[in-house]
Amino acid sequence: MTKVGVLLSGCGVFDGAEIHESVITLLALDRGGAEAVCMAPDVPQMHVVNHRTGKPTEETRNVLDEAARIARGDIRDLAEVSADQLDALILPGGFGAAKNLCDFAVAGAEARVHPDVARLLGEMLTAKKPVGVVCIAPAVMAAVLRDLELDGDLTIGTDADTAGNLERMGVRHVPCAVEETCVDAERGVVSTPAYMLAGRISEAAAGIEKLVDEVLTLARTGAEAPA
Amino acid sequence: MTKVGVLLSGCGVFDGAEIHESVITLLALDRGGAEAVCMAPDVPQMHVVNHRTGKPTEETRNVLDEAARIARGDIRDLAEVSADQLDALILPGGFGAAKNLCDFAVAGAEARVHPDVARLLGEMLTAKKPVGVVCIAPAVMAAVLRDLELDGDLTIGTDADTAGNLERMGVRHVPCAVEETCVDAERGVVSTPAYMLAGRISEAAAGIEKLVDEVLTLARTGAEAPA
Repeated sequence: MTKVGVLLSGCGVFDGAEIHESVITLLALDRGGAEAVCMAPDVPQMHVVNHRTGKPTEETRNVLDEAARIARGDIRDLAEVSADQLDALILPGGFGAAKNLCDFAVAGAEARVHPDVARLLGEMLTAKKPVGVVCIAPAVMAAVLRDLELDGDLTIGTDADTAGNLERMGVRHVPCAVEETCVDAERGVVSTPAYMLAGRISEAAAGIEKLVDEVLTLARTGAEAPA
Repeated sequence: MTKVGVLLSGCGVFDGAEIHESVITLLALDRGGAEAVCMAPDVPQMHVVNHRTGKPTEETRNVLDEAARIARGDIRDLAEVSADQLDALILPGGFGAAKNLCDFAVAGAEARVHPDVARLLGEMLTAKKPVGVVCIAPAVMAAVLRDLELDGDLTIGTDADTAGNLERMGVRHVPCAVEETCVDAERGVVSTPAYMLAGRISEAAAGIEKLVDEVLTLARTGAEAPA
């Protein structure tokens, strides 16, 4: 069975992994005949945000503990996961991707990536195993590609400021509709805007389901583009 | 547009609303052309459980604040919602239904229901507006029916202990496969086992998608059974 890592960043759009995107990913993987391997880094969240008021609180929460909510307790510490255990990897969005997996939310194009996130994404790229990045998660991939001195095609939809920051990291930003994906077959990287553009959950789902299909196809046929 | 309340009980299977069941419900409603109206009671959670370890913590969290994570901030205080604002209502499962909406998790057949939960469910039953109850949420409905001295058909799947507690509250428990539903057309109540039985997210989704279809059909055609 195709094993696909799902790298979570907490539980909640404003300070963690976007919950709808994460669950839609898990459902599409199961329906696509793949086994999801949920994981997250064992670190404090950058922020805890009250999702009713939108305001930060004084609490501290742990990214792995909170991500375990989405995984129903079946989750692994990212530090213990390497690319040889996976056929593919998907990063849902949510501010957690830009706050806890890297610091793009505050540092923009200067974003630094959590060392284990950088390690695993680097391993996947080297092994030519496909990686899907949803919503704002392409910012994590862009920072990893920048640090590896690689380029690539990515989309975060149409937001000019965010797209500009991605391009400053050296990738090509490709505008993309919410139900579509951007496929970089050479890198084995697939991206979709999801809630960067979606006004409704079904719009986010359309793009994510397409991304999961494409990631599984790449994983099962080999991620390399024809020569 | 058909307005369907989604009554959440926190965010996480062990102390709140089951996240997969909640998101699958929201997606099915959107794809079914309905508008979801998320709500939760503004009360402290009975427990906060670390979902990585499965153990209770010393934290306190608010049900409405945490449920807002699933709703991406678009949530209403249950106290302000009445049946005349809704065409139907769905309760996802998770221990939160049995800990925060009522205390079935500790009191079994003697469960007491949160007053606003009892009020809204009673209003829906009186108005013959359909209610869908997922996973363990039929326990909430059973306690409401008991207090109203009404019976009805409900399923929580096949678990004999839980089914026995439902029957002690005066309802008929109907064994049900994970991808199926139990429809009580007279009461306008639809139930499905979801993670009471599901081993995989796609199994939970099959039953929930059927439940949402049936709830929407009842809402659009009238919940009353033919005479």
